[in-house]
Amino acid sequence: MKHLLDTQGLAYDDALAILDTADEMTAVSSREVKKLPTLRGRTVVNLFYEDSTRTRISFEAAAKRLSADVMNFSAKGSSVSKGESLKDTVQTLDAMGADAIVIRHSASGAAAQLAASDWSEAAVINAGDGTHEHPTQALLDALTLRRGWSAAHASSPRGSDLSGMRVLIVGDIVHSRVARSNVWLLRTLGADVHLAAPATLLPYGTDSWPVTIHYSLDDALSAAPDAVMMLRVQAERMGGTFFPTAAEYARRWGLTDERLAVVERLRQGTTDAAALILHPGPMNRGVEISSAAADSPQAKILDQVAHGVAVRMAVLHLLLSQRQPDGSHDE
Amino acid sequence: MKHLLDTQGLAYDDALAILDTADEMTAVSSREVKKLPTLRGRTVVNLFYEDSTRTRISFEAAAKRLSADVMNFSAKGSSVSKGESLKDTVQTLDAMGADAIVIRHSASGAAAQLAASDWSEAAVINAGDGTHEHPTQALLDALTLRRGWSAAHASSPRGSDLSGMRVLIVGDIVHSRVARSNVWLLRTLGADVHLAAPATLLPYGTDSWPVTIHYSLDDALSAAPDAVMMLRVQAERMGGTFFPTAAEYARRWGLTDERLAVVERLRQGTTDAAALILHPGPMNRGVEISSAAADSPQAKILDQVAHGVAVRMAVLHLLLSQRQPDGSHDE
Amino acid sequence: MKHLLDTQGLAYDDALAILDTADEMTAVSSREVKKLPTLRGRTVVNLFYEDSTRTRISFEAAAKRLSADVMNFSAKGSSVSKGESLKDTVQTLDAMGADAIVIRHSASGAAAQLAASDWSEAAVINAGDGTHEHPTQALLDALTLRRGWSAAHASSPRGSDLSGMRVLIVGDIVHSRVARSNVWLLRTLGADVHLAAPATLLPYGTDSWPVTIHYSLDDALSAAPDAVMMLRVQAERMGGTFFPTAAEYARRWGLTDERLAVVERLRQGTTDAAALILHPGPMNRGVEISSAAADSPQAKILDQVAHGVAVRMAVLHLLLSQRQPDGSHDE
Repeated sequence: MKHLLDTQGLAYDDALAILDTADEMTAVSSREVKKLPTLRGRTVVNLFYEDSTRTRISFEAAAKRLSADVMNFSAKGSSVSKGESLKDTVQTLDAMGADAIVIRHSASGAAAQLAASDWSEAAVINAGDGTHEHPTQALLDALTLRRGWSAAHASSPRGSDLSGMRVLIVGDIVHSRVARSNVWLLRTLGADVHLAAPATLLPYGTDSWPVTIHYSLDDALSAAPDAVMMLRVQAERMGGTFFPTAAEYARRWGLTDERLAVVERLRQGTTDAAALILHPGPMNRGVEISSAAADSPQAKILDQVAHGVAVRMAVLHLLLSQRQPDGSHDE
Repeated sequence: MKHLLDTQGLAYDDALAILDTADEMTAVSSREVKKLPTLRGRTVVNLFYEDSTRTRISFEAAAKRLSADVMNFSAKGSSVSKGESLKDTVQTLDAMGADAIVIRHSASGAAAQLAASDWSEAAVINAGDGTHEHPTQALLDALTLRRGWSAAHASSPRGSDLSGMRVLIVGDIVHSRVARSNVWLLRTLGADVHLAAPATLLPYGTDSWPVTIHYSLDDALSAAPDAVMMLRVQAERMGGTFFPTAAEYARRWGLTDERLAVVERLRQGTTDAAALILHPGPMNRGVEISSAAADSPQAKILDQVAHGVAVRMAVLHLLLSQRQPDGSHDE
Repeated sequence: MKHLLDTQGLAYDDALAILDTADEMTAVSSREVKKLPTLRGRTVVNLFYEDSTRTRISFEAAAKRLSADVMNFSAKGSSVSKGESLKDTVQTLDAMGADAIVIRHSASGAAAQLAASDWSEAAVINAGDGTHEHPTQALLDALTLRRGWSAAHASSPRGSDLSGMRVLIVGDIVHSRVARSNVWLLRTLGADVHLAAPATLLPYGTDSWPVTIHYSLDDALSAAPDAVMMLRVQAERMGGTFFPTAAEYARRWGLTDERLAVVERLRQGTTDAAALILHPGPMNRGVEISSAAADSPQAKILDQVAHGVAVRMAVLHLLLSQRQPDGSHDE
């Protein structure tokens, strides 16, 4: 693995290696171990063409806990705003000694374009490209699901995948790179993926995806998912014909208090009857998720954040620790 | 002490412990000792809902000199600007492993709300909340006053308080969290506190404060204060009935060259006749303070800045160094 | 050497010392050596009154590879935007313990004013002041030229200067601090400096400069320079009488594909017939330089970026490593 660009092309073994390494990293990210010297002297550059403090700060925390140096390059106020091309920016960062480039870009495919180029020897990590993918988000979701799944089955998460787990993704699929990355990774890990969304928020071509589609959230819940992943809905989707108001969206597609009661007793056969609740954050409380649902014991939303640091540590560690200065790899 | 939220509730012993520790830290902050390893592996997050480069950079310098990792989270361009609540932001930072959260917020009480919540195990340090308090500013002022006071009395500052010292605070009291924090801390430390301000810039209820109020700066100076603390006046206060212009404000409430001559010979009984001059910065030279006054030998304004780093090192050290990963404390 | 303010006043021996040290630093900046402990515990402040992510991040990388702590102070959103003077800002940074202040300012002479003042004990490094100078840019250009020159002559760069080398600087001289810094440094190092620019983009008084001036790029190329340095042209120069469009500028003053063919066979007597091509970045591809020229083997533009980190490491090292905490120097 030289780069992490997407989950669609991520091999099963690489995905498991990341999850297993991240499991070990949680000890560091939870501060039982304070800091690892693994990446001392390495430079990680956060190249963010879109604002995203949460993702940027999570990568920054991950890199610093591995003792790497971190530099933040945001497009605003930089040569990028003077019209510099991606190529020239990346070549500049490479010449300054970047070992890894974490890129967030509004154009789908930007990370892949960078990795395919000869602009840099740096490892490329996609931190979200347009509506395409956000692979570390899917990996942190998978780590969270795997822990919940193995806890419910009194087994060890290490080395295991998500075979047999039913995961329901709800809401604005069409604009969500998180949803896309999750669909591919969950399938690779053997999960049974369900989507619930209004037809207008499903992308064209989903009938060829390896998923089951529901056009009603209540129908989808009756299929007894083991985990329910609520997506953030954008305010700008409101005000149209389908969702005149946030309240109307919440009524039809939100995880309301009433639906929380359903979710709490979905899984009768396991040690814990409640399905897991996930959300990538930031939440619109009262819109796609009620406060009671967000703060309920089965909500794993803060575990997701903690796992985000661990997964990003794992990815940086796996991509960089066996890397030579010229960008080649030990095998 | 788990948090530092205000000076009104700060115990005498805790205040002295901070000042004594800060006294030791000045050796590091003045670069005689380069760096302490005390907080290696700890993460300090600057959570700033209002811009304040000076305060942020002072906390950043303090944390780095104790070898902590620092992450800056500003509300602009972050999920906060997408409407994320304080609760969700703080829970996210906690899940990422923040050991201390330094919070600056426009709402009075924001730091206390955070500390009273179960959102985070992190130590909370109030870096200014609305018009309420700014405790580290008051502590750095106290450190500066204590050094000046003990120098004038040829005694050691360590372990001593400000008993018998007369401190005059001048200007825009009503909008100043600095003034509030100073009033409470100075009283705790035994100082005799005087305020001088136009009636329109005094908050409602000051008649119940433990202070002496003057409605003329010249009257206040004739009461022979040992230190004069000039507050920054906001440009937006100008242009009204009371202060048609900055020059008019300066004439009535500024530390002008004429008043500097008075201040220079206020304290006839001590080894140094001049009262100390303090200002929290940034200064409006020519408005609340003349350039001659700002640059005079008795102005301790740059000492205040240096003491700011030392006080913040002391607070971080005292709050974090004996803390367990789960947020509990050694006693 | 206490400060680095300009190249006009930079002594020959100091210039060579920086280049020779930078040569050693390239091993670190290219990651063969990961990190040097030289400046551990020292604080470098980037004080940027103008946005410049490239320069700021280059200084940041340089400081971090020497293990210094770095703090970024940008004028936006800071007390500077509240009207604080340069003096008060610098005194504040000094009181917080800055060992070096890297200043970028829109006013020509700002760095010199700061160095001449008693506001701070910190070493001052000019990172660009108005249209005056940008000395580290000229030093990284010189490092790049020296390496190319010695390679062509099969000699060692260490200890050598640029005697006999012909360097052509092309384009917007009048607004370029890069051009100014280069002219002085190149002359100090013994190079033969040529300028090619439209009369409207030459500053008043260039006839007294130690350079040869050409009013046609093609004439200048026929003088067989060993290196061609293309300057960035600002979009706001377009639209007037002389340069109605970018295409018109490119035709007359750009390093087009046709001119690239000329540049490739300029130097018949050396081991490599092609002249070196330099550009300070960010490039306007298709305006002052064609993509083929920018990406050609003789373009040293990315070497310049890498040398930028090495030169800034050298400057920080030379200014700080023998410095006492009070700002005095070992001799």
